[in-house]
Amino acid sequence: MGMMTEQKILRAAIVGSTGYGGVELIRLLQHHPQVEITSVISSSSSGVPISDGFPHLTNIVERNLDGVVPAEIAERADVVFTATPSGVSAKLVPQLMEAGLKVIDLSGDFRIKDGSVYEEWYKHKAPDDDVLAQAVYGLCEVFGEEVVDVDFISNPGCYPTATLLGLIPAISAGWIDPASIIIDAKSGVSGAGRGTSLMAHYAEINENFKAYKVNKHQHIPEIEQVLSEVAGEKVTVTFTTHLAPMTRGIMSTMYASLLGAYTEEDFVELYRQYYKDRRFVRVRDQGTWPATKEVSGSNYCDIGFSVDSRTGRVTFVSVIDNVVKGAAGQAIQNLNLMMGWEESLGLTFTPVYP
Amino acid sequence: MGMMTEQKILRAAIVGSTGYGGVELIRLLQHHPQVEITSVISSSSSGVPISDGFPHLTNIVERNLDGVVPAEIAERADVVFTATPSGVSAKLVPQLMEAGLKVIDLSGDFRIKDGSVYEEWYKHKAPDDDVLAQAVYGLCEVFGEEVVDVDFISNPGCYPTATLLGLIPAISAGWIDPASIIIDAKSGVSGAGRGTSLMAHYAEINENFKAYKVNKHQHIPEIEQVLSEVAGEKVTVTFTTHLAPMTRGIMSTMYASLLGAYTEEDFVELYRQYYKDRRFVRVRDQGTWPATKEVSGSNYCDIGFSVDSRTGRVTFVSVIDNVVKGAAGQAIQNLNLMMGWEESLGLTFTPVYP
Amino acid sequence: MGMMTEQKILRAAIVGSTGYGGVELIRLLQHHPQVEITSVISSSSSGVPISDGFPHLTNIVERNLDGVVPAEIAERADVVFTATPSGVSAKLVPQLMEAGLKVIDLSGDFRIKDGSVYEEWYKHKAPDDDVLAQAVYGLCEVFGEEVVDVDFISNPGCYPTATLLGLIPAISAGWIDPASIIIDAKSGVSGAGRGTSLMAHYAEINENFKAYKVNKHQHIPEIEQVLSEVAGEKVTVTFTTHLAPMTRGIMSTMYASLLGAYTEEDFVELYRQYYKDRRFVRVRDQGTWPATKEVSGSNYCDIGFSVDSRTGRVTFVSVIDNVVKGAAGQAIQNLNLMMGWEESLGLTFTPVYP
Amino acid sequence: MGMMTEQKILRAAIVGSTGYGGVELIRLLQHHPQVEITSVISSSSSGVPISDGFPHLTNIVERNLDGVVPAEIAERADVVFTATPSGVSAKLVPQLMEAGLKVIDLSGDFRIKDGSVYEEWYKHKAPDDDVLAQAVYGLCEVFGEEVVDVDFISNPGCYPTATLLGLIPAISAGWIDPASIIIDAKSGVSGAGRGTSLMAHYAEINENFKAYKVNKHQHIPEIEQVLSEVAGEKVTVTFTTHLAPMTRGIMSTMYASLLGAYTEEDFVELYRQYYKDRRFVRVRDQGTWPATKEVSGSNYCDIGFSVDSRTGRVTFVSVIDNVVKGAAGQAIQNLNLMMGWEESLGLTFTPVYP
Repeated sequence: MGMMTEQKILRAAIVGSTGYGGVELIRLLQHHPQVEITSVISSSSSGVPISDGFPHLTNIVERNLDGVVPAEIAERADVVFTATPSGVSAKLVPQLMEAGLKVIDLSGDFRIKDGSVYEEWYKHKAPDDDVLAQAVYGLCEVFGEEVVDVDFISNPGCYPTATLLGLIPAISAGWIDPASIIIDAKSGVSGAGRGTSLMAHYAEINENFKAYKVNKHQHIPEIEQVLSEVAGEKVTVTFTTHLAPMTRGIMSTMYASLLGAYTEEDFVELYRQYYKDRRFVRVRDQGTWPATKEVSGSNYCDIGFSVDSRTGRVTFVSVIDNVVKGAAGQAIQNLNLMMGWEESLGLTFTPVYP
Repeated sequence: MGMMTEQKILRAAIVGSTGYGGVELIRLLQHHPQVEITSVISSSSSGVPISDGFPHLTNIVERNLDGVVPAEIAERADVVFTATPSGVSAKLVPQLMEAGLKVIDLSGDFRIKDGSVYEEWYKHKAPDDDVLAQAVYGLCEVFGEEVVDVDFISNPGCYPTATLLGLIPAISAGWIDPASIIIDAKSGVSGAGRGTSLMAHYAEINENFKAYKVNKHQHIPEIEQVLSEVAGEKVTVTFTTHLAPMTRGIMSTMYASLLGAYTEEDFVELYRQYYKDRRFVRVRDQGTWPATKEVSGSNYCDIGFSVDSRTGRVTFVSVIDNVVKGAAGQAIQNLNLMMGWEESLGLTFTPVYP
Repeated sequence: MGMMTEQKILRAAIVGSTGYGGVELIRLLQHHPQVEITSVISSSSSGVPISDGFPHLTNIVERNLDGVVPAEIAERADVVFTATPSGVSAKLVPQLMEAGLKVIDLSGDFRIKDGSVYEEWYKHKAPDDDVLAQAVYGLCEVFGEEVVDVDFISNPGCYPTATLLGLIPAISAGWIDPASIIIDAKSGVSGAGRGTSLMAHYAEINENFKAYKVNKHQHIPEIEQVLSEVAGEKVTVTFTTHLAPMTRGIMSTMYASLLGAYTEEDFVELYRQYYKDRRFVRVRDQGTWPATKEVSGSNYCDIGFSVDSRTGRVTFVSVIDNVVKGAAGQAIQNLNLMMGWEESLGLTFTPVYP
Repeated sequence: MGMMTEQKILRAAIVGSTGYGGVELIRLLQHHPQVEITSVISSSSSGVPISDGFPHLTNIVERNLDGVVPAEIAERADVVFTATPSGVSAKLVPQLMEAGLKVIDLSGDFRIKDGSVYEEWYKHKAPDDDVLAQAVYGLCEVFGEEVVDVDFISNPGCYPTATLLGLIPAISAGWIDPASIIIDAKSGVSGAGRGTSLMAHYAEINENFKAYKVNKHQHIPEIEQVLSEVAGEKVTVTFTTHLAPMTRGIMSTMYASLLGAYTEEDFVELYRQYYKDRRFVRVRDQGTWPATKEVSGSNYCDIGFSVDSRTGRVTFVSVIDNVVKGAAGQAIQNLNLMMGWEESLGLTFTPVYP
């Protein structure tokens, strides 16, 4: 696991290595020029070779899973990724920080700034306010400046990443009515994790398209918190989540009322300007819309537009790979910024197509 | 093809038997107690056994494809289904009617009452106004009375069927603002037909979710025409079509602003009342939403609701099997009504699950 | 569930109604002209409406699940299908028979005539010998005569059905060397049942093709027992099972050495002759091979051949829908024969394509 | 297309850049430390930006497609990959070589040493014998020594790669009977290329498993030629190809009679020894078998075994990603060897899972 170990300068540990987010962090960090993975950690399988559960790692990562012991992690690593379920990170992260580790948390526990809102949507006890206050929300194409040089980043959710990157430039510019926003999101099954359930059973998902948690998904307050901050007013959204018969990919199709006679060309221009120094957002040419496969396996977020003069509305189509840009890739991008490195370090791979 | 031929009373021909709509008509009519298929017709493959191109029909329908000759069709059949591409039906149907045949047209050529609107969206020459005037729009759960005893039915489109059945009771009741309607529709690939194209290539569709024809789909004027009629005012909709990696199934997720403090229970009650004599629309219990697989292979349209008091909007989820309720099944349902039969004759099969 | 109840003459109960085999029995029996379902039974969910777990049955089968109480089943039904896991049927079936019920067992518990062989492969205690002795193996295209008028049928396994129907005519005729048989079988995921496991997780199966239980599958002794009986000598086979990324369907590709200079035409002729009165086996024309989708949702088994004069071997390709011909459909076919009815009663539906 | 252009030392052109093999070469070469792509070439679309047809390359490869003009290619490049259809390479490669280019050909035109055998199976005119004689067959884990320092490599076919790597050590060792080999191969749809056809239509492939070209596939003579060479006697195989409902991946399940009492442990040991310096072949532990997803997106070939003492046969399971190890990845591996570089240069990426 690292013929180039000697010149790498940062040691990383991954808690939750046996989940899809964790194992994707392993895949991506294998090729990061500055990071060496020094511990793969699982609360449930410690002591077992990680390649037992993930044979695709055979001969690539031949390492036993470690247990979740903050002091030991701190001995082995400089930074730790917590790809843990909601509720677990809330308790674990403060211990990891106390042990002196930099932390990038992929759970949702530190995204909602108002503990009572968190508890309403997540049904877990919120983290302490002082820990919450230290968490920097790592939507780096929007808040990248805030990420530099910090010690604790809360990585955005998968749906919020696709959705917010698609909406923020238009809201910032005052081109759309924040009260009119409707979000119709679709996700592949990997977003639900590796846990078994009827909801993830192949025979129930294949050749099936289903809506779930309509207006009830815990990513709603995250989206509303950020949009409200950007709009400078309280924003409430209609948000539907759907499960699509595929493994990877999220598409957010979003609708809003226009506040002026903006054309599709205007939107393309506005967004290209907004993201001009951000290689991982690609704004498609007028008249074309992205597809999830076009970003699969990569850290890109692709965005397209349709302006309908008949209805006075704009439709946004935003796609990401939920496991990369929606989780592990964005976490590494945040690490890069945190460390003062180029944001794309180790992330410049091309989407896998077909 | 018919051990019970002797007691069947209606002879049916199918033009376009080598497309997915045509071959599904064959599957369904095989078990219709009153209809005998007497001719399967294809413009491109006449003279060839239909089981050559569709081996699943081996030993079941061992019949050669006939050519498209109206006089010959009229000799063999009483009613003809035209599962033909747009532009073809416009020319063919008048000849079939002139030959004395009852016609159920599955193309879009006779759905739009205003020829100029048809030409704008379909890019074909519209049929003559007098033929158009004879076409009865067969959305039978809504306009069933109009279908009885007629000779020419224009079968609704797949997207319009799912969408209109989901919206009409609420619009009729005046519960939602017709100006606020946004439709986010998803379809399986069979909706695009059996023709080959990169858009239907397995490697391009599998593990992919894509938007297409955003605000440009030819089903928009059909939806608007019917909604306008029901609302009693001109209705314009925002309409996005997506291709999902599955063969069969359409889901329309629809959004509208509420005109009163209606609850989900109210919607369930309203819709159950509206469709109370219509077995093929199933209104789901409050708090549950349908999935496409739950109607697969069947003539059902299942509908669920989410009312969001935070935004004052209602979300409708409506699903059909695009090849059955969105095409062949609904066409047979229309035939049943046309003939004065029970609407469910030959259509009472259970969805195939899983 | 039964507008035609009055004229139906046989009452059926289904134990294991919440599994895929059980729910398919419900789908198929809905349209059986002579059978009325009078009880749907589940050990785990009794008292709950079956449509709670299977919303596709909404308005179609609105009936609560009953518990597994043999005396109560015997009051309500004449025949019972046991779609139960291995090990459960061994204990339950004797009680059901004692209660006076006819039984069709879909588990593997009564297929292996030698209890010690059963215990070696199934790792459960074998049923008592006297019960085993009463079980008639329902591979009805081969042993149909034996099924007539009996009270207890052991329904063949899914892999054995596809495999045995593909091999038996050639072995019977002495055209292939029984010692040379190699079977490469592929199954959709529904074959593993509705239970959740990593093996059935969508993200692990989609875009994946895997071998499992190579030479270890419990269907091996069933195949060998029947082939040995047909060949009149002990037959041992090489047997590989694979999981294919699809829901339904089994293909057995089988290889054997020829014992004479038989051509593909010879095989087509031999098989058509062998199955000439059996509508559910379709022998394909020389030079074509069946695909699983061509029998999907139907009770057909389709078979094709390739004779390779270069190697002196013949390749058989045999496909079924594992949930229909491999389970529920064949069970109903056996019921029909058991009752002295036409074997295709209620089973004449056309494959669902595409 | 290359912030590191300055230090790269080899210029590469890709003919057939709009096929799946070509576009995968682009993906992989983007990260090769020593190679710069200087021309992407298509006979049909020259002058058009490659990202028009492959939007996933937007902002990554912004380059217009060039035409197929050997002299111009030779000006721009040192080496050319020909990912062209059979029949095209036969004519094109000699011109490219004459123009001074090193060539790695991914078509099948130069794999069969005997022109008459080529013509029998490929139905095209064979290349001239003197050109054929220069082609080195690039199955580099077996014939790697022969690849070093040559100018023209014929890249193995996808099925032969999985099959030969799985069989050769056992044949070399004399452990299996070459006359007994049966190969049951399964491939994802990308193997058929990006051309449209009913065979590649999503609705025909999804939820379907089909056999095709049984004993007739053009990869048969390639497999036999190599096995014969290794065995030192003429080897003839039984070979079935199947299409699986997935995009990427090939599994070859192979059967042979044992020539001694070898165990699974023996096979694991033999194969690990044979491939001990070859990182891209991974031999699985005894009792486990690989799955296609475990090598997806990577250059690995994973192999597992089952020895059945009951039948005296061994079953081999070998998997590759057909687009990588079966085409573009192996071509780059051959380039590396050809240039005297480490074989894994630019190919060390981890499989994409899930």
